[in-house]
This record gives sequence, structure tokens and C-alpha cells, in this order.
Amino acid sequence: MLHFDCDYMEGAHPEVMRRLMETNLEQTPGYGNDRYTGNAKKLILEACGLDGETGKVFLLVGGTQTNATVIDGLLARHEGVLSADTAHINVHEAGAIETTGHKVLTLPSYDGKVKAADIEKYIKDFYTDESHMHMVTPGMVYISHPTELGTLYDLRELEAISKACRKAGIPLYLDGARLGYGLAADGTDVTLKDVARLCDVFYIGGTKIGTLFGEAVVVTRPDLLKNFIPLVKQHGALLAKGRLLGIQFETLFTDGLYMGISRHAVNMAMKLKKAFTDNGYRLFIDSPTNQQFVYLPNEEIDRLRKIASFELWGPRKDKETPVRLVTSWATREEDVNEFISYLVKEH
Amino acid sequence: MLHFDCDYMEGAHPEVMRRLMETNLEQTPGYGNDRYTGNAKKLILEACGLDGETGKVFLLVGGTQTNATVIDGLLARHEGVLSADTAHINVHEAGAIETTGHKVLTLPSYDGKVKAADIEKYIKDFYTDESHMHMVTPGMVYISHPTELGTLYDLRELEAISKACRKAGIPLYLDGARLGYGLAADGTDVTLKDVARLCDVFYIGGTKIGTLFGEAVVVTRPDLLKNFIPLVKQHGALLAKGRLLGIQFETLFTDGLYMGISRHAVNMAMKLKKAFTDNGYRLFIDSPTNQQFVYLPNEEIDRLRKIASFELWGPRKDKETPVRLVTSWATREEDVNEFISYLVKEH
Amino acid sequence: MLHFDCDYMEGAHPEVMRRLMETNLEQTPGYGNDRYTGNAKKLILEACGLDGETGKVFLLVGGTQTNATVIDGLLARHEGVLSADTAHINVHEAGAIETTGHKVLTLPSYDGKVKAADIEKYIKDFYTDESHMHMVTPGMVYISHPTELGTLYDLRELEAISKACRKAGIPLYLDGARLGYGLAADGTDVTLKDVARLCDVFYIGGTKIGTLFGEAVVVTRPDLLKNFIPLVKQHGALLAKGRLLGIQFETLFTDGLYMGISRHAVNMAMKLKKAFTDNGYRLFIDSPTNQQFVYLPNEEIDRLRKIASFELWGPRKDKETPVRLVTSWATREEDVNEFISYLVKEH
Amino acid sequence: MLHFDCDYMEGAHPEVMRRLMETNLEQTPGYGNDRYTGNAKKLILEACGLDGETGKVFLLVGGTQTNATVIDGLLARHEGVLSADTAHINVHEAGAIETTGHKVLTLPSYDGKVKAADIEKYIKDFYTDESHMHMVTPGMVYISHPTELGTLYDLRELEAISKACRKAGIPLYLDGARLGYGLAADGTDVTLKDVARLCDVFYIGGTKIGTLFGEAVVVTRPDLLKNFIPLVKQHGALLAKGRLLGIQFETLFTDGLYMGISRHAVNMAMKLKKAFTDNGYRLFIDSPTNQQFVYLPNEEIDRLRKIASFELWGPRKDKETPVRLVTSWATREEDVNEFISYLVKEH
Repeated sequence: MLHFDCDYMEGAHPEVMRRLMETNLEQTPGYGNDRYTGNAKKLILEACGLDGETGKVFLLVGGTQTNATVIDGLLARHEGVLSADTAHINVHEAGAIETTGHKVLTLPSYDGKVKAADIEKYIKDFYTDESHMHMVTPGMVYISHPTELGTLYDLRELEAISKACRKAGIPLYLDGARLGYGLAADGTDVTLKDVARLCDVFYIGGTKIGTLFGEAVVVTRPDLLKNFIPLVKQHGALLAKGRLLGIQFETLFTDGLYMGISRHAVNMAMKLKKAFTDNGYRLFIDSPTNQQFVYLPNEEIDRLRKIASFELWGPRKDKETPVRLVTSWATREEDVNEFISYLVKEH
Repeated sequence: MLHFDCDYMEGAHPEVMRRLMETNLEQTPGYGNDRYTGNAKKLILEACGLDGETGKVFLLVGGTQTNATVIDGLLARHEGVLSADTAHINVHEAGAIETTGHKVLTLPSYDGKVKAADIEKYIKDFYTDESHMHMVTPGMVYISHPTELGTLYDLRELEAISKACRKAGIPLYLDGARLGYGLAADGTDVTLKDVARLCDVFYIGGTKIGTLFGEAVVVTRPDLLKNFIPLVKQHGALLAKGRLLGIQFETLFTDGLYMGISRHAVNMAMKLKKAFTDNGYRLFIDSPTNQQFVYLPNEEIDRLRKIASFELWGPRKDKETPVRLVTSWATREEDVNEFISYLVKEH
Repeated sequence: MLHFDCDYMEGAHPEVMRRLMETNLEQTPGYGNDRYTGNAKKLILEACGLDGETGKVFLLVGGTQTNATVIDGLLARHEGVLSADTAHINVHEAGAIETTGHKVLTLPSYDGKVKAADIEKYIKDFYTDESHMHMVTPGMVYISHPTELGTLYDLRELEAISKACRKAGIPLYLDGARLGYGLAADGTDVTLKDVARLCDVFYIGGTKIGTLFGEAVVVTRPDLLKNFIPLVKQHGALLAKGRLLGIQFETLFTDGLYMGISRHAVNMAMKLKKAFTDNGYRLFIDSPTNQQFVYLPNEEIDRLRKIASFELWGPRKDKETPVRLVTSWATREEDVNEFISYLVKEH
Repeated sequence: MLHFDCDYMEGAHPEVMRRLMETNLEQTPGYGNDRYTGNAKKLILEACGLDGETGKVFLLVGGTQTNATVIDGLLARHEGVLSADTAHINVHEAGAIETTGHKVLTLPSYDGKVKAADIEKYIKDFYTDESHMHMVTPGMVYISHPTELGTLYDLRELEAISKACRKAGIPLYLDGARLGYGLAADGTDVTLKDVARLCDVFYIGGTKIGTLFGEAVVVTRPDLLKNFIPLVKQHGALLAKGRLLGIQFETLFTDGLYMGISRHAVNMAMKLKKAFTDNGYRLFIDSPTNQQFVYLPNEEIDRLRKIASFELWGPRKDKETPVRLVTSWATREEDVNEFISYLVKEH
């Protein structure tokens, strides 16, 4: 059986495992007060063009947890978070944001992306609405890059969104669960330093790119997320053996590992995409990253699911249903080739 | 200056005030453990075709508070509430539902109403989605009657929604902030007994119909909202002098006062609507109840706001903006006539 | 039957009712944007020695609601509120503070009061504890005056607590549900202006002193409780007919009504206390305010409850149980006299 | 430098690491839907004397997270959790329980333990208090075993607590962060099967006993924690690569590893305790498990901290301060011996 369900089907990159083994019986203080975590933070800040004065880093365990904790930390009690209606926080986090007491305020999604103009309009409409004290105040903007649909902002779009947020005086937060797969995509003009320059808070995903688990939250404004550790603890996100996060991120940010393994996943995804389009399949989304979305006739789904696992994107429709195939740093090229061999021309 | 801003610009109906005065120096136990509250509950249950075996009543202070408390009481922690995207709980309660930890799951709004078919589809799609354990479980349905746009469900629609909820095993909750104005509307085929028969929980609004404040929550299923009093207390909704609620609702439900004063408001609203259409104004919504929505050119808004106050419905648009005019039990016919005299034919 | 259960057994002071009747059919904007509310706020600020520059006032409906809303507004997410273990917020609000996500951190109670030295010790211990990032940060102090046990701080104690809070950089919040009964007590050296000078936020209770309902929150630091209205709305505490609060507090703060009626309640309570001690009953607490606490043998409780209602203070004990008798602005002297006539010398 | 700070200073037991390495590049479905997790659950249930009909298991990441998620899942909205005032949930979880909206209701601590009689009294007092609808309803009992002070319940005590809970109709939840160290202690008469028989929910800690991270929640009543997965997700506790938990617990519950490594830690702790008492040091608590508490004069603390790290138990006192030394499955006997060699007779 081949597997393209998601980008968290394997463990960690072998180099990450090697380092975890190597350090396994060392004794370090808990909760991230260890030298590995310290070094990982330093390496991440450097990669972002920041230092200990201009930025800070927190290492958390998982994506939903990170989103809930960061958003809870950024918003005042009367505020909500603006996001695309397709955003992970709005659809696939089981209401974790709302459990912190905050509303997700939705903007139209353009293949998973939001537009600066829509943010500006929302905020203008809000403050000109005579009833706005009865409404949830937009207090921050959430975007994902790549989005949940595999798409990417270009630099101009990201700059416009950042500008809209700064004009409105609200922080911009970028969910980078798959950030590497975005930065490594063909044709993108967005770098990690751009992300750090344009966002107020973002996270660099490890779970989906090379680690067993772990997400690195980068804060680029010293006034934000002060007193964050007790909040991380409250959210059950303060790992006792914090050094596990440190060791993993230290490894990812040594010798360009993070970008290298990200690039591999994108290559595999492009190979899949080309095979779909060469065989006349219709893309649901034209994604330049590791998630590929294609329409499949339902009988084709049934046939292909006998040899490969992948997700339906939403409930099964009458005739054809969009499906998602995902590659990762761990995807074997021979698996991709085998899957492609099952595709049918003129299906 | 004339006032059509809302239906809570005056105090209470004179008969309600008379009773409050009359009983003012009586001594009663607090928190609703008084004979007036007991009698009010009995009268309300009777009006609903229920009794102490089949129904129960709780008296709360305000609408947002009631919605938040009831929804918090009905939902399990992993559940959210389905409502029209235009619903009061989704737009105008400052996120009160989310502060209880629950997500508002939106359905399309048809002039403020939801369709049974959309509820059924949402629930079917949810349970057939392979990722549904990562999503918010739909745990109840919220509707308002009249809606925030003044519209009404007909009996067939309400029965279909009730059936959809019962089939799905989730409670149906009806926000009746303006219930009287709906029950008293021309041509409606929905009675209070129908509401009690088809909904699992609903509230009969007092604040907008005759009382100083107060909303009567009616529960028609004995298994729901058990242990509700401590929850009411937690929500800051347990009035110390609970008898004030009892006296007011006892008065409303004596000698048909509630329906009588509701009817007056509807008559005044119909007079306004006729004047608008007679003069060629374009309705934003064709509402049969006490809220009237009409498009006004912006200069017309400026002109009319010199003699009457009313709300813009959303932010001011470029040329014309929908506005809302509201009548109530207290609206004076001479005020309506005067306002109408300012309308301009072929404006 | 005589009633000494609590200080909210009657409606409102006749003058308050007169003003509510007089203004009943006036039309005013909702949610406190009316002239009565404006004037009430002005009068309250004046009585506190403040003005619109140095203070602000919010009018809410009930005490538990006010405590939950204010505390939610003052605390950051990782903070808790310090209070006596006997505090209303810790015992008798059904967990309303915790529903906002905040812990009540308890200090020893000395007849309902906290000591400045204990606050200082708590904060010092907290910050010197090597594990404090795993603990709830003390973010404010809650006191009540009079306390839940009827006792009062003297000026020196209040100054010491205020100083401890300011040194720690955390706000001091005073629950004044019965503030008038404290300010009117014999021998107190604390004035309303002292309260305003020493506290950062406090509320002046109306429900228990002359109004149908209503609590006036006074904020004495401009940086606190900004954006409070949406929070009030979220908490279901924004009264639609806000002017009802305005009219009532305007009346209370006109011609010294608030202090005058408070004084009456204290006089009645002192009469009760004297009767108890004269007859050899043992006080549970020596309270100078309108709540009186006395030990009664259980058979005495049973006997007296046949002619008067009053509360047991906690669960019934084996032989004797402390009970609470409460007077109010509305207590009739003949009722007090009649009750006293039932007391037995050498019981 | 020697380290006795805590029981999470190393990574995982070598056998656990070996299995993680061995399976690292296998592909499995996410979120615990893998065969390793399935097998781990089976092994755990067997060890507890349960099967898939009578029990269920959930694997979460960390202790605070587990407590918050389970307690949130067990309590109704108006309920709180009873625990010792020294309980981890009351002191060292940064208010995580309160962020779920629930109050921690404290009972007296007897060296970290609660007494059945106090539970019974609390519940009786609650329901006989005439004001109980204004108070937080006790909805479950939390105990830890070993406690935060290293102490253990004996079987008779545990049976009495269980009986008190069942009589009151509320679940008993046992925090087993260090459960193995308790079950392996000298002289205990409590087995894992006893725990499963007497508790309604408990967790078997992995983080402190052999895994990198992970806690196994065991539910022994089919009606509890239904719909728990979405709640786990909401709490940010649903690990994407859930199999990491499965593999680790499968290893722990194969060939008696869990009990074997627990026993080692206890042996090391007993050696430490004997050395303290032999040298005339005064125990703060006489703990039979892996946490040892002893009073040290402050100068002794300063001297010993030069060669070994350990925690002060609370803020430093004037002359002597209790300290905690912790052993674990990973403690090396030579380290214990070296530490003991620094102790001074007649210090």
C-alpha cells in the first residue's frame, strides 16, 4: 500500500533521530531551559534575520495547540481573529480557538488565501458600523503559508496584508505548519526573512517537516507575547522534556537541513501534479507545494484507494470528489513512480 | 424628535409599572423563589400548552445573556451551535457565545431564516466527512422568530426544522426576543403552542415587549437544562430581586396583555411599510413584523434623521443604505403619522 | 412573618420608583447612551472626588455579574485574583470567576478581611518560588467593604492594602455591594473619597441599597478597563434599557439619598445587635454594619424561624449554628422591635 | 554536576528509543489510528484487568494537558473538582483547570493525600447548605498517587475514597504521573488492578517513567468521556504522529518494563533517604517513592548545590528550607553514591 494521506505518516528525519539517540541519556533541566533549546532558538533567529534583541522563539508541540496558544496570547478579551473561511483554525481545529473564548471572524477565501483589500474593508466597515460595540472587534489577522489548499502568497500580497495590519494596529500571525514547503516551492519570491519582516508572529512547522513533533513560534515584536510561558503551561503545551524540541529544531536549522528536505517534498509533489495533468485529470487547485488537489471520479477513487491511501477533500460528492495527495520530506520517489503508473490516460 | 431606533426606548407597559409599584415594599425571598415568579411560570406554561410536568420556565434579564446561558447549558464541550450567518448570536452579541467556549457554525441566511434542508445537509456532510473528529460537532440549532430581519417562519418551515433537529438528535432553540411581534403578525400560521411543540427550548422576550427587562426561557423537554440555576448564576444572570421578573411576566400573561400590545406594534409597523411602498420607496426586506427595512438614498437619510432617529443597517454605502425603523408596544400612532408626513412621493 | 433574610427582599426606595414612573414613557437611546445615565455618572464621580478626566463609571445589573466582568477585564490570561478565602467571589458566585478562565487565589480571612502583610508575603513568595512560571500569577487583589461578614477595614488597613498593591503593580478592586452600609457605619474613618483614592476599581452597590437592581463600577485609573463595553456585552451585562440604571443611580446620588438610607439600615442593625448582646446571645462576628451574625442554639433557631426568616450561616451544626440577620434601607423599625420581643433573656 | 531536580531530565528508556528508531520510517495513519497505538491500548487494558468492553484508553502528551482535558471532559459546566490543596492541579498547572472554566475546590491535605471522610463531609455540607445553588457543585474528585509529596494511599484509604465518590455519584480521577513509582514502592498494597477497579478514570504516566513524553488515560466506565477525541483536539492534545505514543507505551507494557524501571527509581530513592536519616537529616516528608523531601539548613543547600542540582520546595526560608531530590528510571547508582558521599554526619 502506498500512502499519500498527509505529511505526518513517518517519524523524524534520520539525522533528527540520530541526535535524539546521541543525547538521550544526557541530563538537562526541563521546560526548555536547556542548552539545546537555547541553541535552536539562536539558529532560528539567525535564519530569520533576527537576534535576541529583535526576536524571540518559543517551541511548542503541535499545530492546533500552537494556534490556540498564540491567538489566546495575542487577543484582548473582546477581540476576535480574522481568517479565511477555509482556515485551519476555522475548520479543522475542533473549535480550539473558541475554547479560548475568541471568535474566528471569516474573510472570503481565494484558494485558501485572504486579500489585503478584504481585511481593510472588514476593519473599515467594522468601525463605521454604528453597532460595532455589539460586535467582535477584529484584533489580529491569521494567515497560513502555504495555505490549507497548498497555495502561496507572493511577496507583493504578503506585503499588502502586512501593511493593512500595521495600519490597523493589529498583529499579523502566520501559521507555518508547512512553511518549508512554501519557501522551497518553485517560483516563490517569499523568503523566511520576508516572513519575519512582515509578520508579527509566525511559526515554523516541524511536525510536518522533519521532526517527530514541534512548532517554533517566532515573535518579531518585543511587546507581544510577554508572559507567554505561563500561558503555554495553561494550554498544556509546555513539554517537560523541552530539550526534545530544542534538539530537533537545532538539527533542522543546522547545515540547511530544513530547506533541503522541504525541497524534496516539493519535487515529489510536482512529479505527481505533472502526472495528473499529463493524464488529463482536472486539478481542484493548482498548488505549487507538497499538497496536491485533484478531482477524481468516484469509481477512480475506489480503484486507486486499493493501492494508495489519500484523503477525500470534504464529503464524497455524487460523481466526482476532490481528493488530496500529500508528499513530505520522507516520500520515496519509487512510491510516487508506482502511484503514477496506476493513473490512466483518458480516464 | 421622533424615534424608531429600536423597541427598547421606553420603560415598561403602564400596567407592568403599576404592578411593580403596588408590590414594591412587599418582602419576598430572592432569586425567583417568590410567589409572583411561581405564578408567572404557571401562566407562561399554560399559554404554551404545557404544565409543570412537561415544561419548565426560567426568567432571565436580557437577550444576549439568555442566549449565552442557554447555549452554554445545552451544548457539550465539543459541540457548536448552528445558526444563520445573520443570527444575532453570530453578529451582534460581541462574541458572547464564543466566551462560553463554543463555536457558532453558520448556515446560509434566507432573509434571516435557515432552511431545514441546509441543516440536514450540514449534519450529513459533517458525519460523512472523514475528518469530522477534527471539526466542531453540530450540537444544536438556533433560530430566531421573528428573525433579526423581521421575517417569520411559517408552520411548515418550522415543522421541517424541528423534524430535522429531532432526526439528528439535537435540540432546537428559538430566540424569541420579539416573539410576540411574530405571533401577532398578519397571516402567520404559527402559534405559541406550535413554538412550544416544535422547539426544545425557546424564550419569550419581555425587554422588547412590555417589560423593563426580562426574558422567559421555556424548556419543553425534561432532560434538558437540568442544574440550570447554578449556570444562570455563573453567567451573572440570576437576579437578586427575582420577583421583579415574576411580577412583570405575570402581568404580561394576564388578560392577554402580551398579545394585545404586540398587535399594536405590528399595526404601527404595517402603517409605516404601507407609507414607504405607497411613496415608491424600495423595501430591503418585506417584513410582516415590527421591524421595517427600507433602502434610503443617503441624502434622504440625512434629511429624515433631522426629524427622526433610526438605525443604518450596516455601514453607510455609497449612494443608498438600508435602514431599519422599529415600532413597539409603546409607539404612538401620532408619531407614525408625523413621520409618514415627511416621506416624499417620487423621492 | 418577619424577614431578615437579606437586603434585597423589597423593591426600590419609593423615590427611585417615583422617578422610574415619571420617566417611564420617555424615549431614550439604549445601552446607557441616555442623559440620565450621563448625569448619574457625573454625580457619582463628584461624590467620589473625581471627574471625567480622572475617573469613569459603568453601570451594570448585578453583583456577581459585575465581579466577573470587572475581574475578566482587569486580568491578563495568565493571572489570577487574590482574595480572602471567605470572599463572595470564592464561595458564593457559583464559580463565575473561573468561568472567565481565572483562578481565585486565596488569602487567610480575618473576619472576612485580608491583611496587607499577607498580600505582600504572597507576592514575594510567588516571585521567589523557583517554580513560579508553573503557578498562577497574582494579577489583582479583590476585597469587599463591608466584607461578607459585615466587617470593615479602617483607613490605615485600606491604605496599607492599597500601598501593597501599588508596590506590586497590580490593581486593587473593591466589591462595594453594601458600600453604603459600610460608609454609614458608626466609627468608620473610611469615606467614599478614600475608597476612590485607594482603589483602582470599585463598585457602589445599588441592588442592596435602594435600587431595583444595579451596581456602579468606578474606575480611577484611565489605563484600566479600556474597551470595557464590548466585554460588558459579552458578559450579558449590557442592559438594553440602560437608562433604568441611570435614573436609579441619579436618584440615589441626589440630595444624599444613598447615605441617608444606608444610615437607617445600620441603625436597625445596631438595635438588633444590642438586643442580642443584652440578652446574652453570643455574637459570631461583631459587625458594625447591616449584617448581624450570632450563634443560636438549634432549638432557638427552630423557635425563631416560626416568626422570622433568616439564614443559617453555613450548614447546620450539632448544637448551635451561626445565623445571619440582615437589615436594609427598607427595614421597618416595628419589625425589628417585634423580633427583639421574641428574644429570651438567659436563653 | 549531579542532578536530582526531577524525573524528566533524560530522554527515554533505551528500549523505547530502540523501538522508535526501528519503526521510524514506517508509514502509519495519524492521530492514534495506527496498529501500535491499538496494541498499546490492548496491553494497558490487560495490565489493568480490563478489556475493550469494560475500559478504554486515550494517549495524550503531557500531564497538565491530560489533567485539564480529562477534567474538562468529566465535569458539567456548573461543577468543580475536589482535590487536596497541595494538588498539582491546584498549585503547579498555571491555572490550566480554571482556563476550562472550572473551579478547583480544595480539601485539607494530609501529606498530599485527601481523606474519604473529608470528601463525604464536603458533599454533605454542600447539599445541606441552604445557599448551595450559589456555590460550585462538587462534580468529581482528583487524587494523585503517588502524591506531589511522594506519599501513597493504602488500599483501605483508596477503597474508602472510591466508595465516597460512588455514594455521591461523582467520578474519581487519579493522576498517575508517577504511578509506577507508587506501585513499585516497598510495602504498598495497591496494585494497578486495584487502581482500575476503584477509579473511574486515571492515567499512567510515561513522561516521568521511561518515555520521551506521553500519558495513558484509562477510563473504566463506558459512560464517561464519550466524544473525547474532539475534546482532546480542542485542548491541543491530539498528537499528529500518534503512533509515537503507541510505540512508547507498547514498549513500556511489554515484558514488565514499566514496573521494572519504576522499581529501580524507588531503590535509588530509598538509598538517598537512608543516607539522609543515617546522617541525622530531618525528613520533611517520609516518602516511600522516588521523590524525597528533607529539611536542609540554608548553608547546606548552598554547599550541596555546588555539586548537585535539586529543587527548593517552596520559597527559601530564613534558616532551613525543605528541598526535594528526585530519582527516576534513569538514575545511576554511582551518582547516588557520589551525592551521599557529600552528606555530612551531624551536619
